[in-house]
Amino acid sequence: MQLGPPQERLQSALMEVVGLLRKHRVLETFTHRQETTRRDLLEHLQQKQNLVELQTRCRQLHPADLAYILESLPVEDRSLVWGQIAPNLKGAVLAEVSDAVRPWLLEHTDRDTLQQALREVHADDLAYLEGRVDDDVWREVSKGLATDARSRLETAGAFPDGSVGEVMRAEATDLIRQAPDVHLSAIMTTDPVVFAARDPIADAARAFERYDLISAPVVDERGKLLGLVTVDVVLDHIRATADRAALQSAGLGGEEDLFAPVFDSARNRWPWLFVNLLTAFFASRVIGAFESTIGQLVALATLMPIVASVGGNTGNQTVALVIRGLALGQLQPGAFGHLIRKELTVALLNGLLWGSVMGLFAVVIYHDAALGLIMMTAVFLNLIVAAVVGVMVPIALQRAGRDPAQGASVLLTFVTDSMGFFLFLGLARLLLL
Amino acid sequence: MQLGPPQERLQSALMEVVGLLRKHRVLETFTHRQETTRRDLLEHLQQKQNLVELQTRCRQLHPADLAYILESLPVEDRSLVWGQIAPNLKGAVLAEVSDAVRPWLLEHTDRDTLQQALREVHADDLAYLEGRVDDDVWREVSKGLATDARSRLETAGAFPDGSVGEVMRAEATDLIRQAPDVHLSAIMTTDPVVFAARDPIADAARAFERYDLISAPVVDERGKLLGLVTVDVVLDHIRATADRAALQSAGLGGEEDLFAPVFDSARNRWPWLFVNLLTAFFASRVIGAFESTIGQLVALATLMPIVASVGGNTGNQTVALVIRGLALGQLQPGAFGHLIRKELTVALLNGLLWGSVMGLFAVVIYHDAALGLIMMTAVFLNLIVAAVVGVMVPIALQRAGRDPAQGASVLLTFVTDSMGFFLFLGLARLLLL
Repeated sequence: MQLGPPQERLQSALMEVVGLLRKHRVLETFTHRQETTRRDLLEHLQQKQNLVELQTRCRQLHPADLAYILESLPVEDRSLVWGQIAPNLKGAVLAEVSDAVRPWLLEHTDRDTLQQALREVHADDLAYLEGRVDDDVWREVSKGLATDARSRLETAGAFPDGSVGEVMRAEATDLIRQAPDVHLSAIMTTDPVVFAARDPIADAARAFERYDLISAPVVDERGKLLGLVTVDVVLDHIRATADRAALQSAGLGGEEDLFAPVFDSARNRWPWLFVNLLTAFFASRVIGAFESTIGQLVALATLMPIVASVGGNTGNQTVALVIRGLALGQLQPGAFGHLIRKELTVALLNGLLWGSVMGLFAVVIYHDAALGLIMMTAVFLNLIVAAVVGVMVPIALQRAGRDPAQGASVLLTFVTDSMGFFLFLGLARLLLL
Repeated sequence: MQLGPPQERLQSALMEVVGLLRKHRVLETFTHRQETTRRDLLEHLQQKQNLVELQTRCRQLHPADLAYILESLPVEDRSLVWGQIAPNLKGAVLAEVSDAVRPWLLEHTDRDTLQQALREVHADDLAYLEGRVDDDVWREVSKGLATDARSRLETAGAFPDGSVGEVMRAEATDLIRQAPDVHLSAIMTTDPVVFAARDPIADAARAFERYDLISAPVVDERGKLLGLVTVDVVLDHIRATADRAALQSAGLGGEEDLFAPVFDSARNRWPWLFVNLLTAFFASRVIGAFESTIGQLVALATLMPIVASVGGNTGNQTVALVIRGLALGQLQPGAFGHLIRKELTVALLNGLLWGSVMGLFAVVIYHDAALGLIMMTAVFLNLIVAAVVGVMVPIALQRAGRDPAQGASVLLTFVTDSMGFFLFLGLARLLLL
């Protein structure tokens, strides 16, 4: 038994596995070089010994730790470690490992082992893995399931993605099996927190935080107990959502296997690059429409990116606040009007302040008062545009049934870039030339 | 008792409070207008009645719900509701409310009420509120504390910010008070997850997720039990971190009170705007250095933002992956070399692909093969720069003891913008003119 902080323990387990792998690799090289000598035989034995040690070590580790170690290893080492994990552990590891690495593991498991692994997995993990495993394998596995595991799967499948019903545990029903159709209200003592199976997990997560829950019952329309949501599921949900949001806001479709083939990684980044290129091309054509204006005063070309950039930055601040308000359910119809008035006033204030700063910058650099005035006005107007679009875009996305966190920033930058160039160069053409 | 999903219940509680407030306001207007009539007297009574109803409703609500309602109300209504909350509930509400709204509540509470409120707060909440309340009030409050509450505060204060010791509960020690200096290893049956008081909460959070924990013991250097970390604290930490990261990545210093005075909101956005302006000014001067080149070929001005933009976008993808790797502790010294090689290869691949696309775009628009070649080369080189800087910046920030999620994106965009303009215009000057 090792004491010590879990993070350190995990790191040292990883190091230990890496050490065993390294020993194994060194011996492997030797074995290939010198053949049929007595030393070779000894080394072969030693190598076997190492693998056994690795196997033993793997058996002592929690499936979540094994998942972490597999995610942290380059593919060659990963393959070797995966081979040493007992089939009855493999299923649990598959449930714990990240979406980015699971496909790799599934590809590197033969069909029989996979079926064996899945048959030994807990019903809740199995429900999670459904749809993440090949259909053929799945059909084979589900044939051999016990009745309650199969009914667990059917229950999970009956509720929409991201609903409480999808992730609830069935164990709760066991607790009151004596009276399986008892009305929940009959056994409750105080005001409880109860979820409907169709409630979004996100709502459940907020309630768990708010009331410091460990678990909560899930009921059907008539108040009958269906199962239990537990805090570990909620924790996984919150973390997964936050991780996904962080990656999406940088334009990544999802997690990336750190050791995936380079081509897969490159491809993971294409959709976002493509969308951004389209908006950049469009902005470029907006500038193109004012080529003659720029030709007459090249200073415009040096100043125009500032107008676009400050619009994008303030707009993204508004977008972040609105998305947060939407997620917290704090944007009631009444609050919406308040919000847009507030963001407009903030934009007015900031537009006057930063517009003046930037106008002054233009005057200092180019000794041209008219250019300074154009700069100031363009920044001011672009901040107003940014505020309106920053409030509207996330709300419109949500009304359209889309995730407001996804795409809002791209759409906003598209508008503030194009409008920034258009306002600045358009004003210049009107007033300067 | 109300059944139903907690999120709906909370929304309807908010609506109910808003309804009561509205009734109250209507009557208030009446009362001011018509005086000393019999009807007025009745309405005055009705108004009193409404306030009593509001008070009763508030008493039934969970402190976290009250916090939510206060956050969702404009300042006038907020003030009225805050006044109806009993002092013994006010402390708990102060612990639950967001950092953005707490200062407002503290300002609108007279000193006596505040002291009374804090004296009735649970020791754990009190530890959380320390440093968030005026020093004078704090001194007064801490004088009147019971011995164990005071020792709880001292324990929490003894550990660094963001450590497990800061948030642990002392209750655990009660459980084994019979043998207060028992060695933890003596009473443990299986391999437990144990935290050191100085471990970062972030590590604890990862362990709670990994092992599906509900609570875990905290020990000192000699393995002696100090307290207990519980999953509700971990949940709050994960959510708060995710929320902060989302706001910071858009350049907001922290949460904003939706109903704060406009000037405060405007000011909350200045630091980021200022930093971004500096980088935009710098990029503008880089372009300024090539004014004569642009003067000879205005097409350069229309194409240059594309080069800067694609560099920023790919670089931010790399930054997001590296930050994630750092947070998961998956970037071992060995993995670092692997990562930079991988990101460089991805940049090479994507540089060839997207460089060609953009070169082609330039040729199609301007029928100038040399311009296309310059475009292609500049995009290719800027993607390489973005990959290197995208890996280096978060790692450098972490080595310098800073939060890699904060500032990495600004620094990266600074480099990719300036280098994008420099590479494209520099190549044009060399090759075209």
